[in-house]
Amino acid sequence: MSLIVHGAGYSTCTQRILTTLCELDVEDWKLEFVDMLKGVHKSPEHLAMQPFGQIPVLKDGDLTLFESRAVSRYLAEKFEGQGTALLGKDSKERALVNQWWEVESQNFNPPAASIVYEVVFTSMFGQKCNDEVVAQQVAKLEKVLDVYEAHLAKSKYLAGDSFTLADLSHLPYAQMLNTAAGKAELFTSRPHVSAWWTDISSRPSFQKVLGMNEFTKGQ
Amino acid sequence: MSLIVHGAGYSTCTQRILTTLCELDVEDWKLEFVDMLKGVHKSPEHLAMQPFGQIPVLKDGDLTLFESRAVSRYLAEKFEGQGTALLGKDSKERALVNQWWEVESQNFNPPAASIVYEVVFTSMFGQKCNDEVVAQQVAKLEKVLDVYEAHLAKSKYLAGDSFTLADLSHLPYAQMLNTAAGKAELFTSRPHVSAWWTDISSRPSFQKVLGMNEFTKGQ
Ligand SMILES: N[C@@H](CCC(=O)N[C@@H](CS)C(=O)NCC(=O)O)C(=O)O
Ligand SMILES: N[C@@H](CCC(=O)N[C@@H](CS)C(=O)NCC(=O)O)C(=O)O
Repeated sequence: MSLIVHGAGYSTCTQRILTTLCELDVEDWKLEFVDMLKGVHKSPEHLAMQPFGQIPVLKDGDLTLFESRAVSRYLAEKFEGQGTALLGKDSKERALVNQWWEVESQNFNPPAASIVYEVVFTSMFGQKCNDEVVAQQVAKLEKVLDVYEAHLAKSKYLAGDSFTLADLSHLPYAQMLNTAAGKAELFTSRPHVSAWWTDISSRPSFQKVLGMNEFTKGQ
Repeated sequence: MSLIVHGAGYSTCTQRILTTLCELDVEDWKLEFVDMLKGVHKSPEHLAMQPFGQIPVLKDGDLTLFESRAVSRYLAEKFEGQGTALLGKDSKERALVNQWWEVESQNFNPPAASIVYEVVFTSMFGQKCNDEVVAQQVAKLEKVLDVYEAHLAKSKYLAGDSFTLADLSHLPYAQMLNTAAGKAELFTSRPHVSAWWTDISSRPSFQKVLGMNEFTKGQ
């Protein structure tokens, strides 16, 4: 097995990488489960691969790579020409893929991750959800999604007519917002965002990855 | 003039792009000043280019591109082979450039930008610096810089032996932390981070860009 993803099927950042692998029709890889509930991500072995003590990490031969977005991009470049053309067709589309990819990272992810953390994860760690933070971050995300709504009224996908890394990068946290975090209305109240979300979230790649969740499949 | 950067020399995100242009030895560009104090970044003309109402934006012929990191990457790809090799020499180094580039975006930038905002910018907007937020974010940044210290003990630059986009991306906010925000000790207390900072911040490209600050040059 040449590609090994150290992570967890239920982890949003791991899902970004796994969905990328599925879109690229890569078959020769395996997921090595890192049990965060047992603290394995803070073990010396894991810290030697990921010094911030987080998942996911990719091993490709003697290359060790972390940061889910860097790994997704690495895979999209390595397997360019195979499966979905995730990076864009020409230099202009590539530039727009990069632009919306950064919008996800800078504008969408911070409020989305914060809402999901408060609403879904605090209870797992015996903490309390901070409703004030949730309200603030929902207001921030509303503004971001208003920009998406106007943009998606003119463009089927974020960077043009086809599904790319820019759309893909939204899947894990948008899925959490739409399900466990109970914030589907952020999407359904905006017709173009809603149509986009229905489209991208039903892709076979992502549906397959959702099936790898260790909690729901009882691993 | 084929490349136009709409932004401001004093803006950190604009500086990321301008430093990239200088490192790539690109000469045919100009900076079109967007006066944020007059609210020009929220004008309909600007919003048509940057729907979030922020600077910077690059115009390259009929391409309009925003998000400073997407623009820097676009330029590094467009002018690859000219000036500094910002993207790495081979696919492995490229992967590590991407990795540390994402570490800047995900781990360094959030606390750094938050500290700079509280300490430097709140007063400009007639708000008060929230000392509790500063303390929390300094603690976060300390942990991030501890990882940098261990890494830079083994590697001259973040992605290997040479200066790349990954180092470059840190310059604007690290400069603010070291000067206006009064947080130089975060760097000087860590010998390898300190040597790295002294090295990268003295590059002629960045020194030239610092000279474009509209406040200090009295534009
Ligand atoms: N920026 C990182 C974030 C990784 C991350 O937040 N991972 C989570 C799981 S989804 C984690 O390991 N959390 C444990 C921790 O931060 O201690 C990436 O995109 O890879
Ligand atoms: N993620 C954006 C951030 C841009 C940004 O924060 N720009 C600041 C100036 S450095 C701005 O325009 N602030 C005004 C505002 O947000 O209203 C980028 O990297 O380009």
